This record gives sequence, C-alpha cells and structure tokens, in this order.
Amino acid sequence: MRITICRREHFNAAHRIYRKDWSDERNLAVFGKCSNPNYHGHNYDIIVKLTGEPDPEIGYVMDMKVLGDVIKERVTEVYDHRNLNLDIPEFADVMPTAENIVVKIYERLRPHLPAHLDLAITLYETERNFVEYAG
Amino acid sequence: MRITICRREHFNAAHRIYRKDWSDERNLAVFGKCSNPNYHGHNYDIIVKLTGEPDPEIGYVMDMKVLGDVIKERVTEVYDHRNLNLDIPEFADVMPTAENIVVKIYERLRPHLPAHLDLAITLYETERNFVEYAG
Amino acid sequence: MRITICRREHFNAAHRIYRKDWSDERNLAVFGKCSNPNYHGHNYDIIVKLTGEPDPEIGYVMDMKVLGDVIKERVTEVYDHRNLNLDIPEFADVMPTAENIVVKIYERLRPHLPAHLDLAITLYETERNFVEYAG
Amino acid sequence: MRITICRREHFNAAHRIYRKDWSDERNLAVFGKCSNPNYHGHNYDIIVKLTGEPDPEIGYVMDMKVLGDVIKERVTEVYDHRNLNLDIPEFADVMPTAENIVVKIYERLRPHLPAHLDLAITLYETERNFVEYAG
Amino acid sequence: MRITICRREHFNAAHRIYRKDWSDERNLAVFGKCSNPNYHGHNYDIIVKLTGEPDPEIGYVMDMKVLGDVIKERVTEVYDHRNLNLDIPEFADVMPTAENIVVKIYERLRPHLPAHLDLAITLYETERNFVEYAG
Amino acid sequence: MRITICRREHFNAAHRIYRKDWSDERNLAVFGKCSNPNYHGHNYDIIVKLTGEPDPEIGYVMDMKVLGDVIKERVTEVYDHRNLNLDIPEFADVMPTAENIVVKIYERLRPHLPAHLDLAITLYETERNFVEYAG
Repeated sequence: MRITICRREHFNAAHRIYRKDWSDERNLAVFGKCSNPNYHGHNYDIIVKLTGEPDPEIGYVMDMKVLGDVIKERVTEVYDHRNLNLDIPEFADVMPTAENIVVKIYERLRPHLPAHLDLAITLYETERNFVEYAG
Repeated sequence: MRITICRREHFNAAHRIYRKDWSDERNLAVFGKCSNPNYHGHNYDIIVKLTGEPDPEIGYVMDMKVLGDVIKERVTEVYDHRNLNLDIPEFADVMPTAENIVVKIYERLRPHLPAHLDLAITLYETERNFVEYAG
Repeated sequence: MRITICRREHFNAAHRIYRKDWSDERNLAVFGKCSNPNYHGHNYDIIVKLTGEPDPEIGYVMDMKVLGDVIKERVTEVYDHRNLNLDIPEFADVMPTAENIVVKIYERLRPHLPAHLDLAITLYETERNFVEYAG
Repeated sequence: MRITICRREHFNAAHRIYRKDWSDERNLAVFGKCSNPNYHGHNYDIIVKLTGEPDPEIGYVMDMKVLGDVIKERVTEVYDHRNLNLDIPEFADVMPTAENIVVKIYERLRPHLPAHLDLAITLYETERNFVEYAG
Repeated sequence: MRITICRREHFNAAHRIYRKDWSDERNLAVFGKCSNPNYHGHNYDIIVKLTGEPDPEIGYVMDMKVLGDVIKERVTEVYDHRNLNLDIPEFADVMPTAENIVVKIYERLRPHLPAHLDLAITLYETERNFVEYAG
Repeated sequence: MRITICRREHFNAAHRIYRKDWSDERNLAVFGKCSNPNYHGHNYDIIVKLTGEPDPEIGYVMDMKVLGDVIKERVTEVYDHRNLNLDIPEFADVMPTAENIVVKIYERLRPHLPAHLDLAITLYETERNFVEYAG
C-alpha cells in the first residue's frame, strides 16, 4: 500500500536569468525581460511529495508537520526574502531558472528525508508557470 | 487512447488523531494538537480520477455527473458534517489520518465504479496538506 | 490619505450549531446537519482589515507581520485544532455560528490593535459561506 | 535529468453535447442539460506539460514564453470566444466533450512542440470537472 | 450589530454581446470577439451578500442553506446550461453584459429575500472580470 | 444605477523596504527580512475597480478590455520584471511598501480613466497580505 503525501510551502525571492559570459544584448534576445539587470521577483510555492507505505503504528507516511519543518529549515527559510543569484551559493554559477531551482531544492531536501520514500517536487514560479522534478 | 477524468467533491468533518492504547501524554507528544481531546475539523476536498478509453458512442470515459453522484452517495454524504472517529464505522479502530481516510474512500468507491477504469484519489485536508492513493 | 491593509490567517476547528434548550428534533429541523451531535469542522480563513493613514516614517498603516502575530496570539492559536463549543469560553453559551464567531474575533482583536485604525473582519467557513463584520 | 515544465492558458467558449443522429429526447436522457439546444459555455483552463532534459546552455526545458505563444497561436486564440460545435472544424462531427477536446488540443499542439519532449495536457472545464491526456 | 453574510453559487452559460440594430461590422468594432455570431460562454460565479442583524434566537442573519436554495431556484437553475440571449426572457432585448446580468440577478432575488436585509451581488464572468451591484 | 466593474492584472517585481537615512541595523530591526540588501520579490496582483452608471448604448460602465489595456500600458508593463526601488522613478525616494505602491498605481491610473467614474484599487503582495486604496 503506497500513498503519496504532499506538503505546500512558500518563499518570496528576487532573481535574474542571464549568462554572465553573454552580452546584455544576447541575454535580452534569449531571456527577454527575465534578464533585466536589476532583478525581478516571485512568490514561489513548493509542493513536496513523498511516496511510500504508512507507518502502521502512527498511520502517517511521514508527519506532515515534521515534513514542513524540514522544508522550512532546508529550503524556504534559506531562500525567503533573498536574491537567488547573489545570496544563495548554488546559484552563484547556475542560472536560477525554475528548472534549476527545483533541482537544487531536490538536492537540498533528499538527504534530510527518509531514504525509503520517493521524492518529487513541484515548484510554482507563478500560477501559470511551474515545474516538476522527481530525481 | 487512455484519458483520465477528474471530479472534485467535498465534505466537512471533525476528527481527532490519537491511539486509544496510548496515554494522553504520549498522544500529545507524537500527534501534537491533532490529538486534542475534543476534536477539530476540516473542509475536505476529494478529487476522484478514472482512467480508461472513452465510450465511442457518447465520448465520455464516464459521465462526470454520474461519477459525482456515486461519490456523493458512497462518500461525501456519508462523511459530511460527521465526526469521523465517532460516526463512521471504518474509523472505529483506524485513526482518521489523511492517509487512512484516502484508503477508506478508495475502498468505498472501487466496487461502485466501472472495473475496467483505473482509480486514483487525491484528498485535501487543507490547501497545504494532501494525499494521493491509487490502490 | 486612508489605506486599508488586509492580513489573512487561518485555523481548523470543530463546532456544532444547536440550542441547548431545544430538543434534538427541533435542532435538527432548524439547523439540519449542522446540529449533528458529535460535531463537524472547518478550515476557517480570517481576513483582518485595518484602515487609516500610513505612518509617514515607515510607510506602513501597521506592520503586517506584527498584525499577523497579534491575530495568531489572540485568535488563531487559541481556536486552532479546538472544539469551539467545548474548548472556547465565549462559546459556552453562544452558538458558534459564523456570525457569532466573527463578532467574537472582533472583540478579541479590537483591544490589541491601534485605536485610531478602523477594524473589519471577514471569516470564511467554507469557500461558499463567509461573513463580514466591522464593529 | 528529466524535468516537467507546465504552462497554463485559457479560453472561453460555447458548446453543446448531443449526437446529431439521436432524437432530442434521447440526447436529453443521456446528456442532460449539456444537450440544451442553444448551447452553454465555459471558462476553459489548459495546462500543457512538457517533459525532458533542460538545454544545458539556457537552463530551460523549453522557454515557457515561447510555449505560451505556441499554445495561444495553435489553440486558445483559435477556440477563444467561439462556439466549438459550429466554428471549429474538428468538432463538426465529433462531440466537444472534455475528453474529445483534450485529444484535439493534443493533436493541434504535438506537431509544433519539440519531438524529443513528452507532452501531456490537462483541460479544466470547471473547477470540479477536468481531464488529462498524454497521447 | 450589523453583519454581512455571503453565499457563493455558480452557473455555466453561453452569451453574445451585440446590438441587433447595429451591423456586424459595427458590433465587431465595438464589442470585439464578444460579438462573435455563434456565441461563447463562461463559468459564472455569483456571491450574494445580505447585511443586517442576526436573529437572536438562531444566531443567523439568514440560514445560508436557505439562501443558497433561493439563489438556485431563482437564478442559477434558471440560467445554468442556457444561452442567455436566446433562452432567458430578460435578455431578449437587453444585452447580457456582466453589468446587465448582475442587475437582472438582483431583480430576480430582491423580492424573495427578507426586505429588512440589504442586498449586494458580485458576479464573476472570469477570474479577471467581475462586477458588483447593490441596488 | 451605479455598478462597480473590476479588472485583475498582474506583474512580477523585486523590491526592498529600507530607509536610506537609517543604518542597516535599524532597518533590520524595523523592517526585518524585507530590508535584506539584495532585494526580494513578489507576484503582485492588482484589482482595479471603477464605479458609475453603465453607458445605456453599450451596457458597459467601461469596456473591461480597454480598462485592461490602460492598466497594462500605465502600470503593469512599466513595473513588470523590474526592481521597484532602482528602476521606477516614483520609488527613488519613496519606499515601495504595499501602501505606497497602491497609492502610486492610483496616481498613475486616475488621469487616464474616465473622470466621472470612482476608482478604487486592491494590490495583493501575497495571498496573505494586501491593501486597498480609493483616493
């Protein structure tokens, strides 16, 4: 009996999409207004999904309050009210596209969640643009 | 050609998460405020998903109005405005965690839905906490 | 220059709508399934609105983080995961209808918010049923 | 490393569910008010999901702005503010059930999206009724 | 003590915005794609708001279940799955703009709701376009 | 007959809340993480409300498509994907708090909307924090 539990958390951050090795013109041509030099920002929503068998004693796949605390400690309190490009080490040389952010969130969380549970993450950049990654 | 149809229904119920064979202290330590003795409650949302080939004559995998009626008759009208622990037989000896509720909903619905269609259920306890089960 | 700031918070609680001085039959006839004896529950959302002039030095009508803390301390941490009828003193002899809950929330908050700001509260019992009160 | 990107778009359209070779009575018996002769309508939401490896140079599976433009050009600007039965060729002899619409949207989009990316589509007819199709 | 109670209901309908005494060209120039000849449609949401003093005996301004039944009987079951222009008498000679629909809903409801309660209505045509009317 | 029409638009932007004439320590003490030096950001939603009599010939208070175009031209295309502090002149010496942003949006829109219509604006910084201003 495999069940998936899902927990939503959020953070607000600034970012900019551009390659440092490209000219401003080329960045603008490829990334459009996402490359504007002074950053823009988003209210990011994360949904963390864990799949496995419930613990027979407590009836939980994992306590969602504990899961929420892990997400907060490892991801949202780190990213919240920050500039992803300037303040977060993993984006020093990796562009903070939604695709790259969801992978980095996965890497931050995977070691701190039970190894026998499958992990998948959905990251909403806006209500219209979101990404999913399952390792 | 396999298509998934999805129908959302809802119910409002009270519940409490605790083990009868544990002390109040142990229940509080493990389940926190979810074990408060006088119950709390939620607006539960269910999404029922059925996957299969559409009927070529009517273009439906299943009539969603009929699907909604099955969900109401078998689940939401039974659970709505009830105390899951006290009023619903399947939770007399099973804690009504989201994980256990979604399994019981699956068991209630599976015999009353077409056998050739795959069934999966998502249960929202809140906007932030939800679970998925596919049998 | 008058501006309204709005802050959303939430709590989950059980309740039951019935008059102690009425028979079960009469309660059922008037209040329907809301009077079921073992309680049901909701995910309640509150929006607290304060109207006044922004402080010229900090540009805030009131710091929304502080406003959120007042709402949590005075209302949502008190009501959350509780049975409104049994656990909350102001509903010992007052039925916890949405109308009465929003008035009690107003009375809990008014003394702890700046007196020069107008207060209005919206309480969502479900997405479909909600109430507003402004003192 | 496979990631899914998701883009939401919408259109508003009229439709009617009925078989031309059936009597009005039979259509009403099978399709209910969805067969009313003068049409009704919906705000349709589409979520288009593409799965594959991000381009290492730009960090995108596909530019979501470009994906949005393809959806608009091939689907939503064609269907928007139209009568699906009368104005859209693919529904001249196919009933515009949600199941059939999502398949036709898939067929419209598949040739114009990168062949190495897997495509799945979710179509919301209402918040309560939606369908998913992945080819 | 004045409290506002709010009830949300919905209906799905087709409509077309055009003046019969204008040419198709002029209608297109003024109303754009809203004047397309074969109609389009929407998922309409209504919020009905009633303001007054709660009944001291039952703690309700008005029973929201009863309010919902009045809205269904007088408005949503009449308009649902209909073509507003062709099927609904009050739009035979009045264009079903959101502004006109909300006024007609008000006129349909006002005689069937308690006269001592103030009535206001919000009508959502889409999530982005909505109107409010209070008589 | 006065009706209110409401139009929702959005923009994504970076900002920082701090006084230039205060030390970093004082800014941090008063504004918390909102004063982080490298900015953060939000998905801002605006609802613009106009109240007045519908034009008897076209049945609109104002064409919502035209209203949307005015909001885009005067506000959202100017603010979108920008740093409010660095890129937008009116925030060069005014902190971009939600209160100040909603006032500046009002000032940007008022001259370009019909003078006989009352204007009110709601600005959502997040789903939990929003402000309203009516001039």
